[in-house]
Amino acid sequence: MCQNHTTTTKVLSVASATAPFERTTLERRVLRPHDLLIDIQFSGICHSDIHSAFGEWGEGIFPMVPGHEIAGVVAAVGSEVTKFAVGDRVGVGCFVDSCGECEYCLSGEEQYCTKGVVSTYNALDYDGNPTYGGYSQKIVVTEGFVVRIPDALSLDVASPLLCAGITTYSPLKHWNAGPGKKVAIVGMGGLGHLAIQFAHALGAEVTVLSRSLNKKDEALSFGADHYFATSDPATFTELAGRFDLILNTVSANLDVDAYLSLLRIDGTLVNVGAPAEPDKYHVFSLIMGRRSIAGSLVGGIRETQEMLDFAAEHGIAPQIEVISADQVDEAYQRVLKSDVRYRFVIDVSTL
Amino acid sequence: MCQNHTTTTKVLSVASATAPFERTTLERRVLRPHDLLIDIQFSGICHSDIHSAFGEWGEGIFPMVPGHEIAGVVAAVGSEVTKFAVGDRVGVGCFVDSCGECEYCLSGEEQYCTKGVVSTYNALDYDGNPTYGGYSQKIVVTEGFVVRIPDALSLDVASPLLCAGITTYSPLKHWNAGPGKKVAIVGMGGLGHLAIQFAHALGAEVTVLSRSLNKKDEALSFGADHYFATSDPATFTELAGRFDLILNTVSANLDVDAYLSLLRIDGTLVNVGAPAEPDKYHVFSLIMGRRSIAGSLVGGIRETQEMLDFAAEHGIAPQIEVISADQVDEAYQRVLKSDVRYRFVIDVSTL
Repeated sequence: MCQNHTTTTKVLSVASATAPFERTTLERRVLRPHDLLIDIQFSGICHSDIHSAFGEWGEGIFPMVPGHEIAGVVAAVGSEVTKFAVGDRVGVGCFVDSCGECEYCLSGEEQYCTKGVVSTYNALDYDGNPTYGGYSQKIVVTEGFVVRIPDALSLDVASPLLCAGITTYSPLKHWNAGPGKKVAIVGMGGLGHLAIQFAHALGAEVTVLSRSLNKKDEALSFGADHYFATSDPATFTELAGRFDLILNTVSANLDVDAYLSLLRIDGTLVNVGAPAEPDKYHVFSLIMGRRSIAGSLVGGIRETQEMLDFAAEHGIAPQIEVISADQVDEAYQRVLKSDVRYRFVIDVSTL
Repeated sequence: MCQNHTTTTKVLSVASATAPFERTTLERRVLRPHDLLIDIQFSGICHSDIHSAFGEWGEGIFPMVPGHEIAGVVAAVGSEVTKFAVGDRVGVGCFVDSCGECEYCLSGEEQYCTKGVVSTYNALDYDGNPTYGGYSQKIVVTEGFVVRIPDALSLDVASPLLCAGITTYSPLKHWNAGPGKKVAIVGMGGLGHLAIQFAHALGAEVTVLSRSLNKKDEALSFGADHYFATSDPATFTELAGRFDLILNTVSANLDVDAYLSLLRIDGTLVNVGAPAEPDKYHVFSLIMGRRSIAGSLVGGIRETQEMLDFAAEHGIAPQIEVISADQVDEAYQRVLKSDVRYRFVIDVSTL
């Protein structure tokens, strides 16, 4: 079922950093030997889509088709594809190519590719062509950057796992969240509500630190053992020196020293959200407990597959609100107001 | 050779944060069963002595006798001392007691004692009595906080190892400086010139990052493989993504993002100097390479002994300038101007 022509697809794009979304079309490339043509069914909305579409993370390549939480079905395969067949349920996450030769690619951590990983949208591929993401009905991706969605996960629920899921799973694994470990999750949004589920399933004791007590019951239902409001100064006294690992899913600037004070000796504060302005910390906060501040960027393809399989096995799923293509501008505004529990997913059949 | 009376000792003390040093006396406590009375011969001057004596790290307990790089000889032992005998060559570093029961004390990392380690000076011991440090001819310390100085190390040279030595050795060991690792040492002062020697002896490839090229020849003689001036912007281009570990020995605020850009994926910037003002960093600098910023506080007693033995075995020694008690005020001013290669040591026989 090879094909030697480009594929026209309906997309949702923005013409500039200030423009609303509009329905347009674009051509997906002729299939190369290892390419898959994927019929996208659902595409999650990630906060980084908003940063990118609004031109907040550099200028941006416009017109832009955001979306890197892509779930669909293989519609056609290139001549040398070996891993997938037409009809397979598949996902694509934050990147669609890497050099394949550097030590990081070879170790399955393509996100840190020395040549520079090719992002799913708002990037140039190695041929210099702009990439366009998942707010779209079809996409062409080389099979090495496609993962299999387990049968136990529906495609709408699977889509946010491709970014929000791996972004939280990878650091929890890397910093050894597991039995005997006390893990705090800061923020309970799209990332945080998945982080709770992963950390719990990995066997850690999970504490949620959220601004207010509003989401306490839901946090406990996701597997949190404890829940504290960070708006209450007593929280920082009571939890001093408590955690082995704090996973910060919030993109706003935090009082870093206050959070560092919650770490045990050798504890680590890992950031997966990135505020535009610099964070500040007193070096003493690190020195006095051999503590660390770190960051983590999504995860590699192999680990993304592992994460999906783990989610399927443990019944981990994002809580989503499925929207139509007409509702994306409004959804962006609601994300900015934290008015979503907990992830918007676009039904791209409405395009 | 027990004794049931206090011991009068000559000391060099400051009456307040603005006073010069003066010769006074104080009483060292009656020996407890596990105490040693030590005749101090040399006491190193650490930058933190200056911060403390000038009241820059909190108010300070005055009069203050600084000094936590203490080398001397055992003059008397308590009734139950088992590890040392009169005449032994010994050292005392940054702390003189800890709870002995918490997980950190039990694992030999007394510096992170949960109850709070008792600093060698400018602190209160567990009985509420102020501690007075090594600018002094005699000191009484419980044997668990005393280390043995190997015969190969002279006492004057040994003294700076008790703080500057362990402060650099411990993080190099903790973050696995060794064969195959590229380590950068930022700053070439009292700490830095020892860090070069330790990192080299541990088998790492050592690069010194210093403001100017002034100390290049000496750095190479200490075992550095490479030397770059941080005042040259080209340094940051040329060394981008180079290091597994950067050990920052400078107490001034750095351009943290610039130094983070020199780290490989999973690299760590470890601070052992603590500027008074907060440092700043962009979270992106961490996220894009799963990098960490960390801090490290001296080292435990067991590791301090290991460090001394390692220094003796590998011929590692600080380059020192021995001064008399009259020269301490002047020496402080010279330290503040970085006008010392590389550590002042007080000959306390001149008190």
